[in-house]
Parts: sequence; structure tokens; C-alpha cells
Amino acid sequence: MIHGADILSYKTDKDLIDFSSNINPLGYPTGLMDFIISEFDNVKSYPDIQYRELRDSLSRYLKTEAKYIVPGNGAMEIIDGVLSKFNRCIIPYPSFIEYELRAKENNCEIEFIAPNPDLSLNVDILKSIIENCSDDGFKNCLIIGNPNNPTGYVLSLEEIKTIHSLCIENEVTLILDEAFFEFTDSNYDTVEYANSMNYKNIIIVRAATKFFGLPGIRLGYGIMNEDNVNFLKHSLNPWSVNSFAESAGRYIFNDRVYIKESVEYIKKEREFLYDQISNLNSFKIFKSRSNYMLLKAMKNDVNELFDFLLQNGILIRLCSTFRGLDNTYIRIAVKSHDDNSYLIKKLKEFYNAK
Amino acid sequence: MIHGADILSYKTDKDLIDFSSNINPLGYPTGLMDFIISEFDNVKSYPDIQYRELRDSLSRYLKTEAKYIVPGNGAMEIIDGVLSKFNRCIIPYPSFIEYELRAKENNCEIEFIAPNPDLSLNVDILKSIIENCSDDGFKNCLIIGNPNNPTGYVLSLEEIKTIHSLCIENEVTLILDEAFFEFTDSNYDTVEYANSMNYKNIIIVRAATKFFGLPGIRLGYGIMNEDNVNFLKHSLNPWSVNSFAESAGRYIFNDRVYIKESVEYIKKEREFLYDQISNLNSFKIFKSRSNYMLLKAMKNDVNELFDFLLQNGILIRLCSTFRGLDNTYIRIAVKSHDDNSYLIKKLKEFYNAK
Repeated sequence: MIHGADILSYKTDKDLIDFSSNINPLGYPTGLMDFIISEFDNVKSYPDIQYRELRDSLSRYLKTEAKYIVPGNGAMEIIDGVLSKFNRCIIPYPSFIEYELRAKENNCEIEFIAPNPDLSLNVDILKSIIENCSDDGFKNCLIIGNPNNPTGYVLSLEEIKTIHSLCIENEVTLILDEAFFEFTDSNYDTVEYANSMNYKNIIIVRAATKFFGLPGIRLGYGIMNEDNVNFLKHSLNPWSVNSFAESAGRYIFNDRVYIKESVEYIKKEREFLYDQISNLNSFKIFKSRSNYMLLKAMKNDVNELFDFLLQNGILIRLCSTFRGLDNTYIRIAVKSHDDNSYLIKKLKEFYNAK
Repeated sequence: MIHGADILSYKTDKDLIDFSSNINPLGYPTGLMDFIISEFDNVKSYPDIQYRELRDSLSRYLKTEAKYIVPGNGAMEIIDGVLSKFNRCIIPYPSFIEYELRAKENNCEIEFIAPNPDLSLNVDILKSIIENCSDDGFKNCLIIGNPNNPTGYVLSLEEIKTIHSLCIENEVTLILDEAFFEFTDSNYDTVEYANSMNYKNIIIVRAATKFFGLPGIRLGYGIMNEDNVNFLKHSLNPWSVNSFAESAGRYIFNDRVYIKESVEYIKKEREFLYDQISNLNSFKIFKSRSNYMLLKAMKNDVNELFDFLLQNGILIRLCSTFRGLDNTYIRIAVKSHDDNSYLIKKLKEFYNAK
């Protein structure tokens, strides 16, 4: 599998707990269902082709003007649309597999950046590649997950500024995929920074999918300068956000209590998983700040573990399809306390039986 | 405006009756809302990346195997994805403006085909252009609306066979955009024909949007051979149909009573509009078999009429943005009997006052 969450392909006689899919375990905000039902008859009309109310709602949430915001059918549609503007895409790995797939679909040449030994971004290699790319007339972009998937690493604001300066100097556009940004309890706001730079050579992409517990709804958005907004307006299909996603987007970003509770819950459970898995002495754990965690098995490959967990009703994400990773890596989501405890119990059973 | 239904751009103090948007006036099928609510919590998971149940539902409706079916975020996503396979697109006009826009976005060269004087497809020009296009190694496609927008013309099965044969001989792929096909009460089924030809050089695109009264839901699908299905699987963004659209797609196609009633209602109202507008002696009427109707004003341009109707709470579609048409053309939708009667009343007022 190249994506998590393909739970139907692993259908067994049990209900599976899906640790392969990184979704807010608190579920969607209370009140959302009632709101969407109250707005149901919007389905009788085309969505506003300019998504004015949705963009206003995002504008208040992001504290940037609506003219910089483009909604899309999931963050993927925005990333795909943005990539269609470029001839070359610089991709540090390991990272979300779709960067590479969408870049290829958009006929971008790809320059990969190998990571540091701890899988963090190698800024020296990045620097040399950016400088090498700048002279041949190609339109270049650099795409980085912040937090990165599958490592869960977050860039510091200083790192972003350094990389962004390098991009400006070399006429590269920095695309920050922040689909999981809200989970990180960050001490900076990338949108605030990018706004202060007038979105020069920087595009931020976010999703409602993951943080708001709504993977089925397909709502993402990009934040970028007006030139790029106009480019996307032409390259995206019209009405790509349906009326239900549009309604959701006018509701969820107002729910401050849900947002605060989710961040705190995830942080606590991430720490719980980290401590418990450390105690197993079976994995190297990559210190994530997102709602998932990359683990490297110290001994063997993880196929046997995968099968054992599947038999016990747990689906995890094997990571050998991520560039640079092999069959000793798995990724697990941070889920509800009960689910996390059950996973720990089963991991203990597996490793104690060894 | 390049599209109908942009009602927000014409917001007045009145509620507008939107004759610019071609949607089933009976509204969506009874029971759909309850079904979608009962399936609401699907939003907590990613949609099945392979859309197995949805494709099975479509397979039963279309009487063709699920392996030939690709669902998309509206028919537009399918058309856009299909066009990305080709270097050249042959487009008879007047036709839906997005054919040209999406072809350009996909870097297709475009060959336009001028219509007969009655705006029907000029098969002689089509033949010569197809034969001219076949020798330069380009991948060629031909896209035709069936029924065509804005004329409402439907091809006969014999015409389809002729055009399709020509396409096969010259290695052109025929794309039939049948977004409005269900409205036509056709005496043939294009899918049955294409299926009998193993979908060789033919792709059919349909929508749930219009016929099922669900423009807000964004659900379309393509029917094509497995090579093309595999091409689209890679070129489309993953999970592009959201969980609400997916649920709708598992419901609406089963509602045979709604389908039958809608076809009969539209036919009756289309005839009512035709007769009433004929009596005005102010328009040439293009004999549509769809749920909209193209009119050419016999005297002046139609801007004054547009403004008069807008003041009376009616939005119609000016057609000068359609290639080949000018500011003497309008398109009106077939709506509910009350709405249609109100339109006729206002048209009478306008033309009697002249």
C-alpha cells in the first residue's frame, strides 16, 4: 500500500482499529452534524464558484486576508494544482509519497534531498541543490512537510526563515505542506510569517481533514500571493469543494474549545505512547510533534509484527514504500487512550513472546 | 460570466429564480437526506480509495462492469483528467466553455469545428479535420456534448456510430460528455453501445449533479476501457469524491420512480416553454431535448431583457461567452411549472411593452 487508511483492503472478520490513518481521535467537533443538516439544502445549488463565505471563515481563522486563500478538494488538490506551475520540484525525503507522484503527474523534474542520519532535513544538501538549480531557467519549487510525514518533525521558525531566504535568493518557491500543523502546538504561526513577507516565494497548504476529524470531507486550502491565487483559479476545476465541505468549513474553524482540547489530548497521548514504547526497548522512536510517530524496529523486519497486530484487530502503516525507509519502519497514529493502551498491550505481547 | 449559476454575483434584495442553472426542478430524490444523515459518520474515515461500493452501485445502474467506471469530483474532474492524456482536442462549437478551458490547461492544441447554420454538428468539417489530424503523431481526442450545451441537441445512435467509426479509423478518442443525458429520454443507451464496442476509442462522462438535483454534491463518473481507467487512477487526486457524495451515489441511482417522474416532468415543461415562447414571436428557438433551451432574439440584443428579468427576480444565461454565439442568444433552464409560468409572464410583459 502506498497510503494509510486503506482499511477495506485488510477487511477481516474483526473491526480494525486503524493506526495507519492519522486522524484526530476526538472525532469531529460537536455540533457539526446539526450544522451540516441545517445547511443540507445548499446541495440544491452549485457552490459559490468564488467560495466567498468559506474564504471569509478561513480568513478569520488564519488572520490573513481572504484574497490570499484558495480552498480545494483536500490539501492534495491544492498541492497538485500548485505543482502544475513548476518544471522542477525539490523533495527532501522521507516524505509524503504524493509529493513525488503529483510532481511526476505534472511533468516536474524531481531533485531528491537525502536526509541526515536521524532523518531530519539536511540543510547543507538542500542549499547546494537549490543553488545548482537556479541557473537553467526552470521554474523551481521545494516542498516540505511541516510537520513532516512520516517523521513528525517540525521546522523551527528560524529554519523556515533560513530556507525561505535561500529560496528567495534563488527564485525557488517554498511550498510548506502543513496538513498536520494544528497538531503540533507550535510556538509560531507560519501564516503570520508568510503574511509579513507578502507571501513572496512561499505557499502554505493546510487541511481540515486530519485535525478536525473529517478525512471523508475533503477540504484543504492554500495560502499564497495573488499571482499564485489567480494561477490556481484557472488550473483547478470549478466548484471542486462540495456544499457539505463548504458548510463544514464555515463551522469548524470557529470551535476554539475543540481546537484547544484536541491539541492537549494529542500531546498527552503522544507522550504516553512515547514512554510506553520506549519501555519496550524494541524500537528507535523518532521524536514526533504530530499525531503520528515513526518507529524503527531494532531487530528484524516488521512484517511479522504487522501480521500479528492485524490478527489482533490493529492496522499499522508499514513504511517501506516511503523513499529512504525500509521494512524495519512502521508509523503509528496517536489515537484515543483506550486504543493506544490496546496497541501497547499487543506490542508487549508480541515482544515478550519473542 | 463564463458559467451559469453564479447567483451570488447578481445578489439583489429579491430572491432570484435561477434560470441560468440547469438543474432538475423536482429537487433531489426523497429519502436522500435521511440516507446521508444515516451515513454521516463515514466522514470520520477516508473514503475507500478504490470506491468499490460506489462503483458497484453505478455498475448496476449503467449495466456495465464496475472495472470500466471511474468516479470523480463532478464530471469536470473526469473530463480534465481525460484531457491530460491528449495533445490535441477537437471541439465542435458552440459547446460547454470548460472543454476549451480544460484543454488549454492540459496543454492540448485545439481544433475547433464550426457548426451548421442551425448550430448542429457539421459532420463534413468534422470528418475532414479528423482525417487531417491523424498523421502527425499527436494523441487526438474529440469531445462532444450529448446533449450538447447550450443547444440541447442529441446525437442519434447512427450519428454516434458514424463519428465513432471515423474516430477508430483515425486513432482519435471520442469523449461524449453526457452530463445531461438522463434528461433526454433517449431511445438508445450510449453505455450499452460503448460496452458492445469494448469501449474502444470511446469515453463517456456523466454527472449526478444535474439530473438528480444535486449540483452542490459534485459527483460525476467516466466509463471507459481499463487502460483509460488505469490512466485516470494515476492522474486524478486520491479520494477526490468525498464521503457525502459517495453516500449519495450509493442511493440515488436506485430510485427508479424519481428517474421516471423527472424525465416526464421535464419533457412536459420543455414543451410548455417551447409552445409559450413560440407564441411570443420574438425568438428563434433551438429544439432542445435537454432541460434547457437556447433562444435567439429576432430583433435586438438581449442585454435589456436580461436587466428587465433580473429586476423581476429572474436570472437567465447570456450566451455571448459561448464561442460562435453573440449577444442575441440566451439560454433558459426548464424549471418548475410555476417558475416557467412566471418567466413566460415576464417575457410577455417585456415584449408587449415594446
